[in-house]
This record gives sequence, C-alpha cells and structure tokens, in this order.
Amino acid sequence: MAKISQRFSQTVAPTGTTFVVGILDTDICGPSQPRVMGVRGEMVHNSGSGWSPVYVTDNLSLMSIGFLLGRPDDAVIWRGPKKNGMIKQFLTEVDWGELDYLLIDTPPGTSDEHISAVQYLRATGLTGALVVTTPQEVSLLDVRKELQFCEKLNVPVIGVIENMSLFVCPNCKTRSEIFPATTGGAAQMCKDLSVPMLGSLPLDPILARCCDDGRDFLAELPASPAVTALKDIVDSQ
Amino acid sequence: MAKISQRFSQTVAPTGTTFVVGILDTDICGPSQPRVMGVRGEMVHNSGSGWSPVYVTDNLSLMSIGFLLGRPDDAVIWRGPKKNGMIKQFLTEVDWGELDYLLIDTPPGTSDEHISAVQYLRATGLTGALVVTTPQEVSLLDVRKELQFCEKLNVPVIGVIENMSLFVCPNCKTRSEIFPATTGGAAQMCKDLSVPMLGSLPLDPILARCCDDGRDFLAELPASPAVTALKDIVDSQ
Repeated sequence: MAKISQRFSQTVAPTGTTFVVGILDTDICGPSQPRVMGVRGEMVHNSGSGWSPVYVTDNLSLMSIGFLLGRPDDAVIWRGPKKNGMIKQFLTEVDWGELDYLLIDTPPGTSDEHISAVQYLRATGLTGALVVTTPQEVSLLDVRKELQFCEKLNVPVIGVIENMSLFVCPNCKTRSEIFPATTGGAAQMCKDLSVPMLGSLPLDPILARCCDDGRDFLAELPASPAVTALKDIVDSQ
Repeated sequence: MAKISQRFSQTVAPTGTTFVVGILDTDICGPSQPRVMGVRGEMVHNSGSGWSPVYVTDNLSLMSIGFLLGRPDDAVIWRGPKKNGMIKQFLTEVDWGELDYLLIDTPPGTSDEHISAVQYLRATGLTGALVVTTPQEVSLLDVRKELQFCEKLNVPVIGVIENMSLFVCPNCKTRSEIFPATTGGAAQMCKDLSVPMLGSLPLDPILARCCDDGRDFLAELPASPAVTALKDIVDSQ
C-alpha cells in the first residue's frame, strides 16, 4: 500500500535511536525492491529457522521473490492463490529476527496481495497503511478505493503522501505540474475523506536514477527539495 | 498490457477508413477508462443479447466494471477468481456487435487478468500485445517479465511504446529526462529482446489533464509533440 524511500526511517528518522526494519516486497509479479535497495543479485539462504532475508544494512533487511528467480527477467506467471501462498510463506517462514517495523510494500489495488497481508497479519495487528498517490484524478480514483479498503478491513490509515507533485526546471527554475491536480490533488482528497495528508514530494530525476541504481538518495543529494520534503514528513510524525 | 490514447486509432489512424473498436477495461480494482474516455457516470444496460457497452462515439464502445459500481469510489475487494469471473463475463456476455478491434486494457503484471484474457481468447486468436513502459529500469524490469509472459503464452508482441520519455520546459524549452533511461530505456530493451520499438512519447501535462477530464487530447492540442509522436507510431504500422 506504500512506496517510499524505505531507507529513510533508518537513516534520518531517529535522533540517536536506531530502528530495526524489515521490508517485505509483496509485488510477486513485479518485484523491484532488490534493485531499488541496491541488493539485486543477492541470494536468500535457508537455515533451520527459515529463510534469511537479505540485509541491506545491519538494521535493514529485505525479502522479495526477486531473490528467488533464476534470472532477474524471469516472469512469475501466477494466479492469486499461488501469490497468496508465497506471501504467507514470506510472513511465516522468513527469519526476520526482532524487528521494530515490518514495512510491507504492495502493488496498487485492493486484491489478493492486500487482502492476504491484512488477513495473515490480523492476529499480530497492523500499525496502519501509508498510502502513496500522484496528484492526478486518475490516480486518486484508485487511491480512494484503497482508502475504502482500509476502512472496510479496519486498517488504520497513517496518512497519504503525494508523490511527483511538481517539477522544477533545472535551467530556469520554472515550476511545472507535470501530473496536474485537476481535482485538488491529495490534499483535497484527504480533506474530503478525513485522512491525514502527510506531505508532497516534488519530482527529482536524481531520485529516479538512485532507485534504478540502488544508490542512497539521501547520501547522493541531501540538498534536494525531495529530501527536505521527506524529512518534513518524518519530523511531523 | 497496454495503455495508449484509445481514441487514437479511431480518430487519426485510418485515411478514409473508419474502424469499429471496443475497449475492455480489465483493471477490476482500479478501472480508469470511464473517466479517461469521458463517459463516467454512464450506465450499462442489459438486454436480451447481453450487456450493452457504453458508446463513446458511434464506432468506439467501452466496457468497464466502473460502470457497475454504485459510487465511483467504491472499492472492489476481490481476489483473483472473482476478477477472472468478471473478465469472462465481459468477454462472453457483452453485446459488442461487429468489431474490427477489441482493445483489452490490463493493469501491469503477469497474473490473473493477463492469464485470463489470453486463455479466454485463445480460440478466437489474439492479434498481439502492445506493451507500454516508462524509460527507467524499475519499469523495464517489469516489462521484460511481461514480454516473457507473451513469449511463454505465444502472444505475438506488436511492439513497445515508451511513455513519459522527456519533458520540455514550457518556459525555457530545456529538455529534462524526468525518468532517466539509466539502462538505455525501451530502445535498448527492444534491441536486446528483438521486439519492435514503436516510438517514444514525451510528457505533456495537457495530456494528463485531458485524461483526468475525459477530453480528447487530439482535438485539444493537435500541435503537441506527444500527438506528433503518436501519429508517427500509427503511420509506421
């Protein structure tokens, strides 16, 4: 239900505190976390206590079907029940160790991956959903359904983050709404539905480049307005 | 497997010829076609010969679960089998009439919607898949899997279109790669996998605006470089 720079909580959120965070990539047919987190090509190992996730840093681990494919381009042509089985295995057979947070990255939608994650974790208790959108109505249309999903399944909504809000020309500094907020964007939606609006992130091509290369955006470009916006979101929590 | 301005074939493709085109929106949990095509709020009717699709123009019809929802924001919280049942119904119980083309718009991935569409239409024969990507590697990573899906299920690939390739600043005309092609973009992928590269579409905020408002982009901004790029793709076929 959320795509956000997952290294963020680990790197800038705590002042003095270090959290131990696990990331579960439930996008079974399109796993991108291994690349984004800079650990593609790593292998997961199976020990007596289950599968070991891949450690991005000492306190940040990741599990994704991407680690189980023979080749990175291999298609996973699976219907829902097989995807659900895999998600259940990730939740029950991965030796995550002691975690402060398990971040579950889902594809968009309100179907198998989402229902399964909520159902399998029902007994444990979910902290909540962090919902990411872009400003256009065609995106908000889907996100409103995801918010209704949360309401129906009693998943608290931590808040909404608007991504790709603006683009500032690197040459003349003109601000362009590449994906125009024709119906008021995430802010208006949050107001209408009484859910917290956490903040807006501007488009930064270097962020996209870091995701592709698995590099740490915060280290690469700490002065980017996107980093400032992310920090503001974290500080507000 | 494809998102493209669907009015296009009808409006500019033929010189003198008029095709009759149906669009089936198989994005059951996030149907956006009714809004994009400017027919949201329309109702589908059930007659003796099945459901009637909604007519966008005389020769362009659309069927989407969006027409069946009580309210546009209603979530469809369905697992795979229910989604498959709906897709089957759309293919067997909609009175499409005589069509030259049925365009099936799918969400990203290689799962229920895609397997079902191919399986249910196997006997009829599929012309092929039109695959749309953005230039970044995190997008190409998924698209390579979709191309492998086509190969494994014997679906011919008509070609790949790269969307959101460039942004030209409206003020100073600086060209920015907002989603940088860090691994060579769609062109390099098509070369590697020997599939046709049909063309690249630049980002145009007015196109996004037209999608949100259901307005005809070709009529609104015929001089946009995105329209020229689309025309070039059509002319090349």
